Parts: sequence; C-alpha cells; structure tokens
Amino acid sequence: MTRTIIESKTKSVIMGFDEPFCVIGERINPTGRKKLAAELELGDFSTVERDAIEQTACGATILDINSGAVFSNKMAEDPRYADNNFVEPPLMRDLISRVQSVVETPLCIDSSVPAALESGLEACEGRPLVNSVTGEEDRLERVLPLIKKYNVPVVAISNDDSGISEDPDVRFNVAKKIVERAADFGIPAHDIVVDPLVMPIGAMATAGQQVFALVRRLRAELGVNTTCGASNVSFGLPHRHGINAAFLPMAIASGMTSAIMNPIRPQEMEAVRAANLLMNHDPDGSNWIGFSRVLSDVATGTSFLEASNNATSAKAAGGRRGGGRRRRG
Amino acid sequence: MTRTIIESKTKSVIMGFDEPFCVIGERINPTGRKKLAAELELGDFSTVERDAIEQTACGATILDINSGAVFSNKMAEDPRYADNNFVEPPLMRDLISRVQSVVETPLCIDSSVPAALESGLEACEGRPLVNSVTGEEDRLERVLPLIKKYNVPVVAISNDDSGISEDPDVRFNVAKKIVERAADFGIPAHDIVVDPLVMPIGAMATAGQQVFALVRRLRAELGVNTTCGASNVSFGLPHRHGINAAFLPMAIASGMTSAIMNPIRPQEMEAVRAANLLMNHDPDGSNWIGFSRVLSDVATGTSFLEASNNATSAKAAGGRRGGGRRRRG
Repeated sequence: MTRTIIESKTKSVIMGFDEPFCVIGERINPTGRKKLAAELELGDFSTVERDAIEQTACGATILDINSGAVFSNKMAEDPRYADNNFVEPPLMRDLISRVQSVVETPLCIDSSVPAALESGLEACEGRPLVNSVTGEEDRLERVLPLIKKYNVPVVAISNDDSGISEDPDVRFNVAKKIVERAADFGIPAHDIVVDPLVMPIGAMATAGQQVFALVRRLRAELGVNTTCGASNVSFGLPHRHGINAAFLPMAIASGMTSAIMNPIRPQEMEAVRAANLLMNHDPDGSNWIGFSRVLSDVATGTSFLEASNNATSAKAAGGRRGGGRRRRG
Repeated sequence: MTRTIIESKTKSVIMGFDEPFCVIGERINPTGRKKLAAELELGDFSTVERDAIEQTACGATILDINSGAVFSNKMAEDPRYADNNFVEPPLMRDLISRVQSVVETPLCIDSSVPAALESGLEACEGRPLVNSVTGEEDRLERVLPLIKKYNVPVVAISNDDSGISEDPDVRFNVAKKIVERAADFGIPAHDIVVDPLVMPIGAMATAGQQVFALVRRLRAELGVNTTCGASNVSFGLPHRHGINAAFLPMAIASGMTSAIMNPIRPQEMEAVRAANLLMNHDPDGSNWIGFSRVLSDVATGTSFLEASNNATSAKAAGGRRGGGRRRRG
C-alpha cells in the first residue's frame, strides 16, 4: 500500500489510498499576489505568518511555500533582484523559517529554482514535500539528486521538454518516465506524488474526464499518490467554487490523494470532508460531525476562519463545545 | 452505447453514459408526508400540482410519482382503505392525470403495488419509467410482463427474496439476474436502470465505496444505466446536504446516470450541474453559465425556486436576462 510520509519537526501526515485527502494550502505564494511580493521585498512576513496560521486553522494538512518572486523596487540598485535565481534561495529560507516559527504543519517547498528547493531543504525541519520535478532532462538531473540526498518525497509534474501535452497518454508516459528515473536514483515510487496536470474545463471540455481517468491509471499501473492544482479546472468560468467543490469529490472518488488548493474556502473544504466520509477515510464520522459544527456556525454568519478557530478551541477544551470559545481580534 | 429513453407526450429524456445526469424529482410521495397523504384522502391535489411545477422549474428532468398511501380517516367507514392494494391503483391514476395536466416533464411511476403500476401505465402518456422491479420471484413474474407489454424502461432494485444483502457482490448478482430474466421476456438491458441500493454511511462506513464500485461494475459488465435514492447515504448525520452534494459528483464520476432526489435543494443541484460540466456533458458550458445566474440570485437572498423561475423566464424571453422577470405571488 502506497504511503507518502510528510513531516514537520513534530507532526506527521500520511498521504495514501486509505488516508484522508491531503489539503495542501496554496496561499503562501507571491506569484500573482503583488501586495504580498511587495511586503516580502520589505522583509515583512506578517501576511505569510497569518496565512500559515489561518490555513492550518481551516484544515490544511500541509502548507505549500512558494518563493516565486522578483523584487522590483530593489532592481534599480541591483539588477540581480530581477532574477528568480538570485531572489528565491534566501527568500525560501526565510519563508520556511518564519512559517516554522508559527505553525507545526508539515511543509511543501515549492519553486522552479532548484537552488531555492535546496535552501528550503536546508532550512526545513522534518520531511517536507518538494514541489516539483518535471520530465524535463535538466530538471530530472538537477532535482532528483536533491530528493535522494534529503530522502524526501517529490511532486512530479507530467510535462517534459516538449511542453504540456493535451494527450493524457503522453502525460501518463511522462509520469512513468519520472518514476523510472527516480528509481534509478534509488527513490521509491511511494515518494513520487504525480500531478497529472489539470486543464481548464472552459478551454478543454474533456479536462475533467482526462484527470479522472489519469488518476485511476496512475494509481493502478504506477502505484503512486497524486495531486493537482485543483482550482485550475474552473479557470475563466463563473461560480468557480461550485465547480471546484464538485471536481474535488470526483477526483477523490477516482483515487486522487491530495490537492494544492485554498483551504480558506468553506465550499471546497466541505466537499473534501464529505468526500473523506464517503470514502471511509473518516470511519466513525467524527471529523464530519466536528466539521458540521463549523458549518452550523458559518450558517449563522460567522466567518469560516472564526468558526474553524472556535471548533479548534472547543476541541482543545476537551470537546465541551463553546467552553473554549473566545473572540479573536 | 446504452441509452434509456423516457418520454412524456411532448418531451423526451435520454439517460445514458454520455448524457447529462437525470434528476428524478422525489417530492410527489405521500410516504412520510402525513399532510400530503391527508390532502390526497380529501381529493386535494394542489400540493402535488405545485410540487410538479416547482421541481420542474428547479431542474428535475423526470418526476417520480409515488402513490404509497393508505387513507386513515376513511378506514372507519371501509376497512379496505387500510390496504395499499385498494388505495393505490386509483390514486396513481389520479396523480398522473393531475401532474400531466400541469407539466410536460416525463414521469416515473413508483409503487410497490403492481396493480398501481398498471393503472399508472394506462394513465400515462408517452414512455414513463417504472419504479420498480426487484429480484423477488413474485415481483419478477408480476412486473416484467407489464414492462414488456407497455414497452417501457424499469428500475431494478438489487434485493431479492433473501432481503437486502450488505455484500455488494450479492447485490451485483441480483441485478444480473434481473437483467437476464428481463431478457427472457424480450426486454433489452438498455431498458433496465439498476438501483444498487445506497446504505446510510452512518450505519455502514463502506457504503459510499460499495456504491461507487458497484456502479462501475454494473456499467462495465452489464452495460446498464443506474439510479439510487441519493439522500439515503446521509441518513442520520448532520448537514446531510453537504454529504449528498459530495456523494452525487462521486457517483457521477463512477458512472451513475440518474438519482431519485430532491431538486428543490440548491446545494445538490449545484453539485449535479457542476458534475455534468466536468463530465463533458455540458460541452459548451452553457448550462453551467445559465445556472450560475441562478446561483448569483440565490447569493443575494432570492429563493432557489424563484431564482430558477427567473432564469426560465429570461430564457423564454430570448436570453435577455431580466427581460422576462416578473414577481411571483
């Protein structure tokens, strides 16, 4: 049975066919978040710390730490700040150090810059997930030795030097190649988490069916865990959360074991927790019953974050609901 | 390719692997609705007519007509009113006649009394679905000849004389037996819609996985369409709509092609419509985009029913949103 172990200094998460779905919180990512990028340039990590705490409270089991930034104000004094290879390695170290100081959630080190992955691996306690390697030759040669050296699991994205294929058979073969190359380095298949690549359904009407079929095949033929950037599927369409909230249970029923997603969204998290129950990954239903109290609070106007905090406090107070409640600022 | 055709006098619905999910509206059912049963006893069909119109407006593609009532006030004067065999045949005829007078939606004739099925078949225009036959010998012998005579499709429920098995292999074999017996009567497999029986997940933690596996197998090995009473899965648990709204996309991803469900519930209907999009059964996304307007209205406080009516009016007015809007009493 495939089990991928991801750990912080104190906490352990198992990704696997018989485990609850792993929610990898996507919020800590300056790509496309200009305000966050500007804060990081000024050495301000307050948003990052808050994102780490909030995503954990809302149910993220792993936090993705993406260092994809360049520093546009500093470029004037030093043009190297326009280069991800220069900016990301120290930024990744700082991001991880800050996040580890506020939460115990296991991390996923996410960068397209191999040196940033390495500095993240140096800074990270426990056994982080690394995001990612692709089927591109230079990436395989640069990233897989790091994975072996640090004995950590890695996300394998199904594109290669020819780009992203629209043909799911080609994407399957790229994943297979990565698993085989990893094996050559002594990395077992249970430490490869394949991202079969989710296309926007608005651009490719078969995108959903492709993913469901690919996940079943990756699991049956390669025995690997899987992940995806879940919200890609709804790109460009109205009421994206409704699409995402159907996509996740469908992917889970097809065998997907994790997703990189926004855990602050109640609709998607409700779908994931209900899917866990329906997959017999919440055997006594206690997680659903606990979460249903959060849903009841949300229905009365409480924010999802505050309701999640209340539930955590109540649990910490020994399950006496309301006993551990307090207002948060 | 398996296609089950269900028709009213004027409208046709195709249930199939490449078709949008069929939503069979469950509301017209006096079982467990005391008030409705009392109204029917007095010959008052106003609730039935309203349920037919509202379910159709909210997106039901087929309406289930269940005649499961006894008439408790009339029992004093005539004890035969305590007998379903006495009450249901004329009641079914009246229910169908009333519903056909207010909507054009195809119907599903639902009774455990074979004579009620027959009187429904006599009253019904078009090609209704019949609900149901089981693997019980007397049911097979009584119902299948009706199905053959009227050339209609039938729901086959996977229990037999030994009851409902908790073993999915036994339930599969019961379904197989019904398909084979139907073939002996000259009824093709594409006119059998198997209900693999959904157990409450709160009582049987494997209930979800059983259904998903059974649906895949029924489709692959018997080539049949499938249905279920979707809300059974959440029986006894809190926030049932959240569980149902994850169950439906998971069942659809596994190949289920219809469900008997409550179409008045926006959360379940949103899940079904998003699943249709993700299965490529809404290829240009126009159904989702239309439905997203309903979701937007609901988000501003409009009821799901009124928002659905508004969308229908707007569509009838040539797509000019708002142009066809009017207040309803």
